[in-house]
Amino acid sequence: MIDRLTEKIRETNAPVVVGLDPMLSYIPSAIQEKAFEEYSETLEGAAEAVWTFNRGIIDAVYDLIPAVKPQIAMYEQFGLPGLAVYKKTIDYCHEKGLLVIGDIKRGDIGSTSSAYAAGHLGKVQVGSALIAPFDEDFATVNPYLGSDGVRPFLEVCEKEKKGIFVLVKTSNPSSRELQDLECGGKTVYEHVAMQVAEWADTLMGKEYSLVGAVVGATYPEMGRALRSMMPRSFILVPGYGAQGGKAADLAGFFHPGGLGAIVNSSRGIIAAWKQEKYASFGEDGYAAAARAAVLDMIADIRSAVR
Amino acid sequence: MIDRLTEKIRETNAPVVVGLDPMLSYIPSAIQEKAFEEYSETLEGAAEAVWTFNRGIIDAVYDLIPAVKPQIAMYEQFGLPGLAVYKKTIDYCHEKGLLVIGDIKRGDIGSTSSAYAAGHLGKVQVGSALIAPFDEDFATVNPYLGSDGVRPFLEVCEKEKKGIFVLVKTSNPSSRELQDLECGGKTVYEHVAMQVAEWADTLMGKEYSLVGAVVGATYPEMGRALRSMMPRSFILVPGYGAQGGKAADLAGFFHPGGLGAIVNSSRGIIAAWKQEKYASFGEDGYAAAARAAVLDMIADIRSAVR
Repeated sequence: MIDRLTEKIRETNAPVVVGLDPMLSYIPSAIQEKAFEEYSETLEGAAEAVWTFNRGIIDAVYDLIPAVKPQIAMYEQFGLPGLAVYKKTIDYCHEKGLLVIGDIKRGDIGSTSSAYAAGHLGKVQVGSALIAPFDEDFATVNPYLGSDGVRPFLEVCEKEKKGIFVLVKTSNPSSRELQDLECGGKTVYEHVAMQVAEWADTLMGKEYSLVGAVVGATYPEMGRALRSMMPRSFILVPGYGAQGGKAADLAGFFHPGGLGAIVNSSRGIIAAWKQEKYASFGEDGYAAAARAAVLDMIADIRSAVR
Repeated sequence: MIDRLTEKIRETNAPVVVGLDPMLSYIPSAIQEKAFEEYSETLEGAAEAVWTFNRGIIDAVYDLIPAVKPQIAMYEQFGLPGLAVYKKTIDYCHEKGLLVIGDIKRGDIGSTSSAYAAGHLGKVQVGSALIAPFDEDFATVNPYLGSDGVRPFLEVCEKEKKGIFVLVKTSNPSSRELQDLECGGKTVYEHVAMQVAEWADTLMGKEYSLVGAVVGATYPEMGRALRSMMPRSFILVPGYGAQGGKAADLAGFFHPGGLGAIVNSSRGIIAAWKQEKYASFGEDGYAAAARAAVLDMIADIRSAVR
């Protein structure tokens, strides 16, 4: 999958991923009303609104980008109907030729991480059948439990040729509280980065490793340092746009030539219609607004990353 | 909920939680075969087997214990049908008067953690309706993203009178890799424990805080130190039994009098029928074997904790 990601970034010339993190407040009221008419104000109604909204966004942007990143929490908050739409979204994106990065941030002790890895990236054995329950192409993984919580993901990646992005330095303001603690001359996130680099060496694709890292756009100086600490890992960069990260800050996350990182924007794209800049699209034009915002984001990133 | 937990521990005199972490290999073949006959070897078939198995265990042990801890990964691995059984299990345990600790280990940036907190412990707003999607009583939370990833859970706990257990020191062997790093004279897990203690002070029940911690039974010397660093927090203790933790190691996790901690066993209870000690129950007697194992565990812990 990492080879397909690289290939698709070259094809689109867009190291950009759209975060499909729908909140109901991003969804035009006409879509919500129609869903609530059919399913009432229930979890099913909310899920239907999310699904209609997502389909509109995907149809509008799929030809411009290599991948999407649905944030599972935004679906899980609507219970089982929400998670059904998470799965429908994965399948629909695959139909459209998009790679799917499941932003699940799972991580647990070994046997439990094995279950997450099988459920999201691999297959579970049911009697004599092997079934892929969620079937994302990539997943994000939390490293707090140490290597035995990550290893099951590595095993599944190797078997299925899928990939992970391990949380190294997250984009949120309080990420410093734990991740920036200094331990023996290195921060916690640098310790994690060193582990990522080791794992990455053991699971190489053609150019990049199946083991990538998450490093927030909001910490550009760390991005540059982490780029060189994890030379074979793709970096998934959240925090561009709505969270404050700017294109000029992004160059250090990439290798010369513009590979090695992929930048996510969620709210800035899927809720573009709510920004003054794209207000002329109106509520009904939310998908066209998203397309315009993706084109602007691609141009912005191309201007800073060469 | 923390007051109800304390009350129920006093009632049952059993600071014990049964981990409902079903793997198919724990489930007697007759149950699997019956489920596969009805649903074939599908995710639905696996989920049905898990549900039948869980119901048997719950019916056999609910009067002995205050709470259960379903590990969501074990359900999530079977996709949507698996997650439907996770929800059915929560509801069934509530019917039986059990408290439910959702072992979800979620944690993300603020807005995303809000979605997890609402989905699992709180309510989501859909139009004018407020709906509780999963409705566990407690959830486990991962602290790697710092306080802005935990705060949304605190807000929901305050509003709904629910509780969380923050991962401080996990029971697995490689938990030391990150959690034991020394930073400024304290380990990472001690830094987390200090934060837990602060959060705990702001959200008190009658005797204990709504904010608890996870500390593995496999690290008894740390249990004692962490008990005094987080005086108002309940400690959820995994790792007893199958993972190697012994009752004699547990005293330090408790306050004098036997409150302040709750010990989990998963495999050691729900797969008791596979142990030599309980083999005489046979496959059909898996639930009775689980009851015998719970009674043995309670006696074992009472002998060490007074």
